[in-house]
Amino acid sequence: MYSFKNDYSEGAHPRILEALIESNTEQVEGYGEDKYTKEAIRLLKEKIGREDIDIHLLPGGTQTNLTAISAFLRPHEAAISANTGHILVHETGAIEATGHKAISVKVDNGKLNPDDIKPVLEEHADEHMVKPKLVYISNSTEIGTIYKKEEIEELSKFCRENDLLLFLDGARLGSALCSEDNNIKLSDLGNLVDAFYIGGTKNGALLGEALIICNDYLKTDFRYHIKQKGALLAKGKVLGVQFLELFKDNLYFDLANHANDMAKLLRNGITEAGYSFLINSCSNQIFPIFPKEIAEKLGEKYAFYIWEKIDKDNSAIRLVTSWATREEKVMEFVEDLKRYSRESIK
Amino acid sequence: MYSFKNDYSEGAHPRILEALIESNTEQVEGYGEDKYTKEAIRLLKEKIGREDIDIHLLPGGTQTNLTAISAFLRPHEAAISANTGHILVHETGAIEATGHKAISVKVDNGKLNPDDIKPVLEEHADEHMVKPKLVYISNSTEIGTIYKKEEIEELSKFCRENDLLLFLDGARLGSALCSEDNNIKLSDLGNLVDAFYIGGTKNGALLGEALIICNDYLKTDFRYHIKQKGALLAKGKVLGVQFLELFKDNLYFDLANHANDMAKLLRNGITEAGYSFLINSCSNQIFPIFPKEIAEKLGEKYAFYIWEKIDKDNSAIRLVTSWATREEKVMEFVEDLKRYSRESIK
Amino acid sequence: MYSFKNDYSEGAHPRILEALIESNTEQVEGYGEDKYTKEAIRLLKEKIGREDIDIHLLPGGTQTNLTAISAFLRPHEAAISANTGHILVHETGAIEATGHKAISVKVDNGKLNPDDIKPVLEEHADEHMVKPKLVYISNSTEIGTIYKKEEIEELSKFCRENDLLLFLDGARLGSALCSEDNNIKLSDLGNLVDAFYIGGTKNGALLGEALIICNDYLKTDFRYHIKQKGALLAKGKVLGVQFLELFKDNLYFDLANHANDMAKLLRNGITEAGYSFLINSCSNQIFPIFPKEIAEKLGEKYAFYIWEKIDKDNSAIRLVTSWATREEKVMEFVEDLKRYSRESIK
Amino acid sequence: MYSFKNDYSEGAHPRILEALIESNTEQVEGYGEDKYTKEAIRLLKEKIGREDIDIHLLPGGTQTNLTAISAFLRPHEAAISANTGHILVHETGAIEATGHKAISVKVDNGKLNPDDIKPVLEEHADEHMVKPKLVYISNSTEIGTIYKKEEIEELSKFCRENDLLLFLDGARLGSALCSEDNNIKLSDLGNLVDAFYIGGTKNGALLGEALIICNDYLKTDFRYHIKQKGALLAKGKVLGVQFLELFKDNLYFDLANHANDMAKLLRNGITEAGYSFLINSCSNQIFPIFPKEIAEKLGEKYAFYIWEKIDKDNSAIRLVTSWATREEKVMEFVEDLKRYSRESIK
Repeated sequence: MYSFKNDYSEGAHPRILEALIESNTEQVEGYGEDKYTKEAIRLLKEKIGREDIDIHLLPGGTQTNLTAISAFLRPHEAAISANTGHILVHETGAIEATGHKAISVKVDNGKLNPDDIKPVLEEHADEHMVKPKLVYISNSTEIGTIYKKEEIEELSKFCRENDLLLFLDGARLGSALCSEDNNIKLSDLGNLVDAFYIGGTKNGALLGEALIICNDYLKTDFRYHIKQKGALLAKGKVLGVQFLELFKDNLYFDLANHANDMAKLLRNGITEAGYSFLINSCSNQIFPIFPKEIAEKLGEKYAFYIWEKIDKDNSAIRLVTSWATREEKVMEFVEDLKRYSRESIK
Repeated sequence: MYSFKNDYSEGAHPRILEALIESNTEQVEGYGEDKYTKEAIRLLKEKIGREDIDIHLLPGGTQTNLTAISAFLRPHEAAISANTGHILVHETGAIEATGHKAISVKVDNGKLNPDDIKPVLEEHADEHMVKPKLVYISNSTEIGTIYKKEEIEELSKFCRENDLLLFLDGARLGSALCSEDNNIKLSDLGNLVDAFYIGGTKNGALLGEALIICNDYLKTDFRYHIKQKGALLAKGKVLGVQFLELFKDNLYFDLANHANDMAKLLRNGITEAGYSFLINSCSNQIFPIFPKEIAEKLGEKYAFYIWEKIDKDNSAIRLVTSWATREEKVMEFVEDLKRYSRESIK
Repeated sequence: MYSFKNDYSEGAHPRILEALIESNTEQVEGYGEDKYTKEAIRLLKEKIGREDIDIHLLPGGTQTNLTAISAFLRPHEAAISANTGHILVHETGAIEATGHKAISVKVDNGKLNPDDIKPVLEEHADEHMVKPKLVYISNSTEIGTIYKKEEIEELSKFCRENDLLLFLDGARLGSALCSEDNNIKLSDLGNLVDAFYIGGTKNGALLGEALIICNDYLKTDFRYHIKQKGALLAKGKVLGVQFLELFKDNLYFDLANHANDMAKLLRNGITEAGYSFLINSCSNQIFPIFPKEIAEKLGEKYAFYIWEKIDKDNSAIRLVTSWATREEKVMEFVEDLKRYSRESIK
Repeated sequence: MYSFKNDYSEGAHPRILEALIESNTEQVEGYGEDKYTKEAIRLLKEKIGREDIDIHLLPGGTQTNLTAISAFLRPHEAAISANTGHILVHETGAIEATGHKAISVKVDNGKLNPDDIKPVLEEHADEHMVKPKLVYISNSTEIGTIYKKEEIEELSKFCRENDLLLFLDGARLGSALCSEDNNIKLSDLGNLVDAFYIGGTKNGALLGEALIICNDYLKTDFRYHIKQKGALLAKGKVLGVQFLELFKDNLYFDLANHANDMAKLLRNGITEAGYSFLINSCSNQIFPIFPKEIAEKLGEKYAFYIWEKIDKDNSAIRLVTSWATREEKVMEFVEDLKRYSRESIK
């Protein structure tokens, strides 16, 4: 059984583990004040092209979302998210547990634009309703789509004009930035959003997300929030070493490119085999629609999620690739698909 | 500069890293449902000697405290802790951030007994005050002392009689159970407390605490709480592999024994050199009292915290040993201390 | 300017004020332990026909919703509400501020039925999502519709089968129970829901809601929650006296009947004048659709909310009647409407 | 049985009820936007002598404390209070329920001064601990003492120098300002504290506290917080009418003066009878120490709280007077005390 279920069922890239071993015997400061974390932060600032940003390393994505959003908002303020947003769908009410409403906006492609947000602002007119204050977007989105630079620019402009914060969940930022459809550079983000994070967990690390705070106003006392939410690892070095390794050369992007390449191979193969997709995604998640019996047959050999029933005969499944996805397994999947298709026609 | 500042400034034990490498290339289920985590949990149940307990692996101590305590309490219920308790002193109000008051009880030795708790129950008489519901203890305590079995038994009895939950913070449980003064077995705890955890971070792991829930009533839906508080690692295997390695033979206890042995060497050497201690501790933290100039001299070569000013000429410092503390450095410290002492007398 | 804007822009019924004056000079216990509150509770139990219920008097509706829902739910549990529900729309995120998600279900008529709730239960399948636990309904709803007895029975059955709590917001319960379409008795509610409240503020009182807890499991320590949320009035008698007066004979229902009668007069008059309604409501809120110029003309003499733009020429407005609505003003409104309509045709 | 138990077991002053009756039949805006509330606020601004302050009327003291403190603090910030502070002792963890730690400072007289606060600031040195941000004081205090102007000035200066907010709980502000030891004017407070409130509930109103926000930074969106915490009464007029009546002439101060006069009569009589006091209070709460048998005898005829056991033979009791305390009952109490004392000597 080979798994395309998700991008966190794999281990870490070997270089990550080697880096942990190499740095293992040294005594360092705790709580992220070690030299590895400091160097990783310095390096990330360089890559992002700004010195005046604050960077913190946190263990996971939900943890980063809840720590940042609860730190950024006052009690009566709310986050706005596409209906597919991770904070709305898959965090067990983590944002609400910190006291804040997350407002859902129904969209088709996992992405928000100003026209989606305007009606929310109009509806929330007075003190009988929460005050929308933060726009939460994911790139790539939870359904594999990505934002174009122009789209983020528009959002950014709209947010600034409307006194909204723009926060980008980058759990899969690597795959987004390495997508062939992408025209955003890491260094663009520092100027376009108030805060964002670069996901390590889903792109080669054991665990870890790098949160970048660009807006001065949001920086104050941020370490207090990390500690209060339980996200300040005693052995913070564990995160520092990994991000240093990921960014000291192009490893982070190499890994994301591999994941995207594998997704593309799958996409092309599936298209050749005559199938279409639920969503036109261009990152490491794809959503082909298969007849039920084909999906079942594939399911005997490959692990994946059934994403959505299309009709009584067809379902969309989700295939996720990662830094560790093996090309021969992808080829095998495509071959199997073609063979099952031929057999089923007979 | 050699550090006795804490037990988390070291890396992981080499066997932990090896185990991570060995298990690295395999695809596994995410979110702690992998085979390593399952096997670690099976093993821990065996060691604790009970099948009817629930075990969850979480990334860190503050995280475990806040997740467990907020899951166990209803909104109006409060935790009781010794004034030195980690939840009171060093968690940035994490418990309060989940909505609960933590009631401080002033004690001398970091430990609670029924007589300390009774007045709290008497004072909190009606609905104008919070309802004390959970007794939080640490073993070893934040000041290096440990509980005797009889003490926990008494507490346990008292809690059951008074409808209180007993929760044990075991961030340094290894050192406590391996102390030469200890008479508690891991298997005792399952019968004496409602929940406790076994700290990995401070005893050889990269990160990780194993939370054991013994009280049936507290088990329901606990994974929801872990997820909501951001403590459910996507690559949960990272924790499973480590706990499996720590407990598949005696590694966990071997490491704690080493830390304790090193503390004992220090303690004996310091005593021989003619100094006394602020607290009569018997685990991996010791608190010798040194004249100011001796402490300063030592501070040039060794890192440690000044714990408390005793008077204008003397201070207690905190020395912490760990699985990684090197015996030759301990010997060197003692020799230096003796030499500085001789020099200072002249 | 005569107002049909809402049912809380009026004062209290004169008998309420007289009762406050009569009881004013006496010394009584504070915090709702006075004899008036006790007698009001005794009386309400009698009217509801159950002794084994707990009753608490709270100052307002949002206060009651947030106190009850946060007391009833564990941290990971969520409320389900129709999209028009007060907790979703007009409480500034009060439920979320206590840590809980409120799940919105889109319906047409302000009411929930089992078929609306089933998909929510199906979607929320595991610990990555909140656990739906409480079904929040309002009767009458925020858009003036009411539940039939059979509907609540079905909901009640469904909730019990699915381990869900059923909570009824009765801010306008008087109007619902006195609606000519109603077949629910106050005494039915005690057997059908886990908790509900009887609104005083919108039906003749200065302020005050009576919360009835029917489910034993939800009763424990409830006064702690009231106090913690700031809802325990020092001079609790103020609420007790009012509810005693409202229920010692039929005043509460007389007032609600008056409000409904006035709404009916309006409804009939508007229908006669040839207009239709956005919602087929049968309580003290009605939503006629008027051409823009008619609405504007009426707006010069009568206060009301524009509820929804229907198209570029027509809008639905909301008219609310209350215990204090004067029949001559209703007649005047209808006459004016008819006159404006005639004039506009010319 | 005549009660000296507290100052909220009485009704409202008759003029308050009359004012409610007079304003009863009029239709007004809801949610505190009515003309009475506006006029009360205008009047209060005049009395306080500042136009640039925001005033909000809330139903009760705990409600005001929790709404204000949670609005003023960010998640990691804490309040500092004397150990006797109402937020620490008698609000069922209301502050903690909004996520904030309340730090207790042990003092003798219910009052804080800069020297009490300095060690708290020193201890809370980094992000592992909460950040003390708001100093909570009560005037009069929970034990009947009052602040002198110089004391508040010093606190105010200290707070500004240390970036702390100064918040004054004025549930019994009337009694404090009318104490013969007082040298603070209502108009001083607007310049000395960041926010404070004027208690109505304990000084002649049915319910209601007027919160004054002096610090611009704290004003933004405050009505959202009131609504979210359930403190925005639909019939807000109920509060407006009462504060208008209390302040349109000197009623508020007349009532407080009466309460203080009655306390003074009691104090003098008790002193004459040869007894001393636990606390040297000068407002409407006094704490005489009586032999057990005297206290018991008095307890047969008068209601009061036993405050503290002094030794096995003596107890301090608390006597509270109010606007409604009758002089003849006070005289009777003193006479009874003298007689019981004579009898007990024999």
